[in-house]
Amino acid sequence: MNLKAIQKICYGVYIISSKMDGKVNGQIANTAFQITSDPPTLAVSINKQNLTHKYIASSRVFTVSILSRFAPMTLIGKFGFKSGRDIDKFADTGHRMGTTGAPVVLENTVGYLECEVLSATDVGTHTVFIGKVVDCDVLGDAEPMTYAYYHTVKGGKSPKTAPTYVQEDSRPAGPVDTGKYVCNACGWVYDPAEGVPQIGIAPGTRFEDLPETFTCPICNAAKNEFSKV
Amino acid sequence: MNLKAIQKICYGVYIISSKMDGKVNGQIANTAFQITSDPPTLAVSINKQNLTHKYIASSRVFTVSILSRFAPMTLIGKFGFKSGRDIDKFADTGHRMGTTGAPVVLENTVGYLECEVLSATDVGTHTVFIGKVVDCDVLGDAEPMTYAYYHTVKGGKSPKTAPTYVQEDSRPAGPVDTGKYVCNACGWVYDPAEGVPQIGIAPGTRFEDLPETFTCPICNAAKNEFSKV
Repeated sequence: MNLKAIQKICYGVYIISSKMDGKVNGQIANTAFQITSDPPTLAVSINKQNLTHKYIASSRVFTVSILSRFAPMTLIGKFGFKSGRDIDKFADTGHRMGTTGAPVVLENTVGYLECEVLSATDVGTHTVFIGKVVDCDVLGDAEPMTYAYYHTVKGGKSPKTAPTYVQEDSRPAGPVDTGKYVCNACGWVYDPAEGVPQIGIAPGTRFEDLPETFTCPICNAAKNEFSKV
Repeated sequence: MNLKAIQKICYGVYIISSKMDGKVNGQIANTAFQITSDPPTLAVSINKQNLTHKYIASSRVFTVSILSRFAPMTLIGKFGFKSGRDIDKFADTGHRMGTTGAPVVLENTVGYLECEVLSATDVGTHTVFIGKVVDCDVLGDAEPMTYAYYHTVKGGKSPKTAPTYVQEDSRPAGPVDTGKYVCNACGWVYDPAEGVPQIGIAPGTRFEDLPETFTCPICNAAKNEFSKV
């Protein structure tokens, strides 16, 4: 059984949001898909450990923001690798309150859907929520981000709570010093050959020469949370 | 409510197969996704009208073949627009019987998964089957086909039983004779400017000049089942 076969399945990258008792939260998910066209229904798979799971189970509503290919890693890091138990993810994120009362992330979003939960199926670590679409719209014509693009082009990782999480082997193949450092929090690897041009770090910059204020572009972990690969 | 937002969700293109009473069948689906990683589980959304639905509900097993970008329209047409009630789709399709006893399509497949059904959720026109992966493998390194690629590059259509079906408007914008003909069965449009080079019909060939043996490359409908656009 070669589980890499599962990685051939195609996904997008979404922010799923919900509300509970006047509070709001959202999280990255790659598993959103249409179930029926009449009426239009959607399914999402949410880890029971996540705060958003608690909110959806309570309020029975959720929204799906479909991220564009241009969504920055900082947005994905905030919604994918931080918990709403620790920070207010919406404090500095462009959004509006939807007709369901749940927030809809608008920045770097090509379209959104608002859903009312019709059913919740327990699948061990996750719950599959199926929702009826009660509002939706297209926001611009940028290409949606695919999960493959996130992983291969943007160097993104999956948190351990993702349906698609696969234990990655970060040990070096041999005693070659590549100068790479791995984020202990999310697994993102800093490669000095590439730098991080999006945040002004030029290719060729050694990890040791990064400012002490450097944080992981995926999950915002501090520089001292990185280990040499 | 602009339902085009739903079309921004990213999908692959799969053949879902099953068995019942010594018979086998399979169908195209674009809605297969991973639910949990431990144990690995998958969900598929299958229209209740489809023969494959009956087989999965009965045998409680299904297989998923992940199609490559190079899968020909004839394969998609056979599994997506023909019914197993009328033809034996596996008679001339490369496959093998899986460990579940359901067939696994191997041609133009980049990977496959075999599943045992854990739950079936009724969602109106469709059932969401969630299955535990009991066998899977990668078959080559071709890029998987995405639903967007199928629609935009290959000119593919969705059957009316698809979760993602959207009524398409095939009326011309004005009284311009484009020479195009539409297949009444599946909605595929023959454009003389493009021809169908894959099956030897050169760009510039008028529909009227196609041989009477011409059939729709998507669903195999006969030439006389086409209407002028």
